[in-house]
Amino acid sequence: MIYLDNAATTKPFDSVTAVIEKYYKELYFNPSALYSSAVNVASQIENARHHINAELGGGGNIFFTSCATESNAWAYNSGIKNKKGNIVVSMGEHASGYENAKVLISKGYDVRFVKLQSDGRIDYSDFVKRVDENTTFISVIHCSNETGAINDIKQLVTTAKSIAPKAIFHSDGVQALGKIEVNCNSLGVDLYSVSAHKIGGVKGIGGLWIKNGIRLTPLLCGGGQEAGARSGTENTAGIVGFAEALAVFKKTSSQKICELRENMKSALSHIQLIEFNDCEQNSPYILSFSVPGVKSEIIQRLLSEKGILLGLGSACASRHRNNRILEAMGRTMPHIEGSMRISFSHENTNEDIKIAANAINDCIRDFRGF
Amino acid sequence: MIYLDNAATTKPFDSVTAVIEKYYKELYFNPSALYSSAVNVASQIENARHHINAELGGGGNIFFTSCATESNAWAYNSGIKNKKGNIVVSMGEHASGYENAKVLISKGYDVRFVKLQSDGRIDYSDFVKRVDENTTFISVIHCSNETGAINDIKQLVTTAKSIAPKAIFHSDGVQALGKIEVNCNSLGVDLYSVSAHKIGGVKGIGGLWIKNGIRLTPLLCGGGQEAGARSGTENTAGIVGFAEALAVFKKTSSQKICELRENMKSALSHIQLIEFNDCEQNSPYILSFSVPGVKSEIIQRLLSEKGILLGLGSACASRHRNNRILEAMGRTMPHIEGSMRISFSHENTNEDIKIAANAINDCIRDFRGF
Repeated sequence: MIYLDNAATTKPFDSVTAVIEKYYKELYFNPSALYSSAVNVASQIENARHHINAELGGGGNIFFTSCATESNAWAYNSGIKNKKGNIVVSMGEHASGYENAKVLISKGYDVRFVKLQSDGRIDYSDFVKRVDENTTFISVIHCSNETGAINDIKQLVTTAKSIAPKAIFHSDGVQALGKIEVNCNSLGVDLYSVSAHKIGGVKGIGGLWIKNGIRLTPLLCGGGQEAGARSGTENTAGIVGFAEALAVFKKTSSQKICELRENMKSALSHIQLIEFNDCEQNSPYILSFSVPGVKSEIIQRLLSEKGILLGLGSACASRHRNNRILEAMGRTMPHIEGSMRISFSHENTNEDIKIAANAINDCIRDFRGF
Repeated sequence: MIYLDNAATTKPFDSVTAVIEKYYKELYFNPSALYSSAVNVASQIENARHHINAELGGGGNIFFTSCATESNAWAYNSGIKNKKGNIVVSMGEHASGYENAKVLISKGYDVRFVKLQSDGRIDYSDFVKRVDENTTFISVIHCSNETGAINDIKQLVTTAKSIAPKAIFHSDGVQALGKIEVNCNSLGVDLYSVSAHKIGGVKGIGGLWIKNGIRLTPLLCGGGQEAGARSGTENTAGIVGFAEALAVFKKTSSQKICELRENMKSALSHIQLIEFNDCEQNSPYILSFSVPGVKSEIIQRLLSEKGILLGLGSACASRHRNNRILEAMGRTMPHIEGSMRISFSHENTNEDIKIAANAINDCIRDFRGF
């Protein structure tokens, strides 16, 4: 089995599974309790927080959530102040950002969507047009989950803050953490969403990094866990596993991933009419491409029968026939229907890439006859 | 080590840890993807849902969340219609209910708290006074996490619906599921919150049972998981582990738990001035008591040094010096300061109870000299 849909879920690292098992079997105490075994578990959560914080560049704190969807919902719901202001959101957001923006529109907020360039990045000149002195909340994804396009968050923050100094700037960093340079402090963001299961942690744990001095209204309130910012019994195993995953992931070779992607891109470039949905500033972990005239759902099924698993795009968008992001990039329907997303992991080998590229070539040739 | 704080967290069952490990090591695919390995994982989620649904009595569906705090937040935020109506909430709710009610008050909603009786149950006559034809949302905990008092939800629903037929009735069933009779259908509730880690599942997974025909606005929106009701990559391991935990928990002997509690209560009843915070309809899993004149924090620490772990009350309330529930039951400050909560699990033995009861007796005698 060759697994090329790693942007959806990466297999948890063995060391993550091992550390988690320890929390299930021995350290299962509720970290909010007051006896020493529980206090010890609580201190391990703080160690994990400290480690992830350090990776994110300091100047803020990470608050653990159940997933990036929760982090994004929290950011959108708390970042907005009132209906007098406006909200600026890129067209390239993950569904969990985009759908929150739509909810805000339905509630009567002035939400302004920023166009994408054909290379998948946010259109800077359109961004400048949308932001004004009444903008209260901005959200731009750091690295696109559909195409891997990397937005220049630092530039966008600088521009936005020069126009609307008090606006809260949120970035969804799920596909960025561990994979490209992330330093929340130097990016200048106020809020940054992350998730564990994209980097070898397990599903069910994410986080929202919050810059020092920013106070958000909690989305989940109750027992006052996470310094009152996010209530709910702490998912200790998931949290400690998240820190372990990040540590291990950072040690894997991104150079190897770059090579895998280059080799795949080069092997696929022989396919007639193929168009890569990428840009110069692209994550090495994602390769999106379109072959007009083929139906990618069928290609995916044929490849799956050969033991090669790849995505059609974000798994979170699998319920929609359309592809909102590619559409915003100006792709036509034949391109969208023929689009696929390959996403790499450190477990993939060059041999995998050769086999998969040949299989993709063959399937597409069989399907359309050239 | 004798662990008597099981209402906070029960050790995950070995079979739960085993099934979860399988999902981490082999079945880690994103269930929203479209290839067969992912579809297989998705079908296991549906099996788990079906199993938990069947245990809850049918007539509705369980939607998985990250914890009961999220379930409660979802219920409170979606159950409310508009500010014209009013909301009725018991004083005995878990912090994750109570704090949501306080947020609604701060937003200008008419929230009416219902008194507790001295035995920990809701005051029925006060309940009848608070509900009127404009009531849109009602929340009453099924089994108190502080005292184990069981509310007669069926009676309350019947009464409420006769006054306000369209009101949404929510009950927090976290301490009830698996431990006392739960049949959402015969209880008549519209919404019912549950959690896995109280019954031998792992932390980070909960659910909200929603009666057929009730549609809630999602709290988390995005990829459209959970039939659009709760977005976020599914915590597959946690979900499948939840169903496994419930199956195993239901097979454990509640008769044994009743005996453990009876033995403990009988052994502690010799302590002078002790007052049990319980009622005739009490969960066998929880035994709350107060010894005026002692400081329970100190007793807890002394017991902890002897290897006996018990709670002072809800771990989720450990950040507050006060005990809101005992106060609502009319307990005075000396009682509240001297209150402790023992909660039992199937792993406790009669020998544990003897040792712990002697130790509690000794510590209290040493502390106050009689």
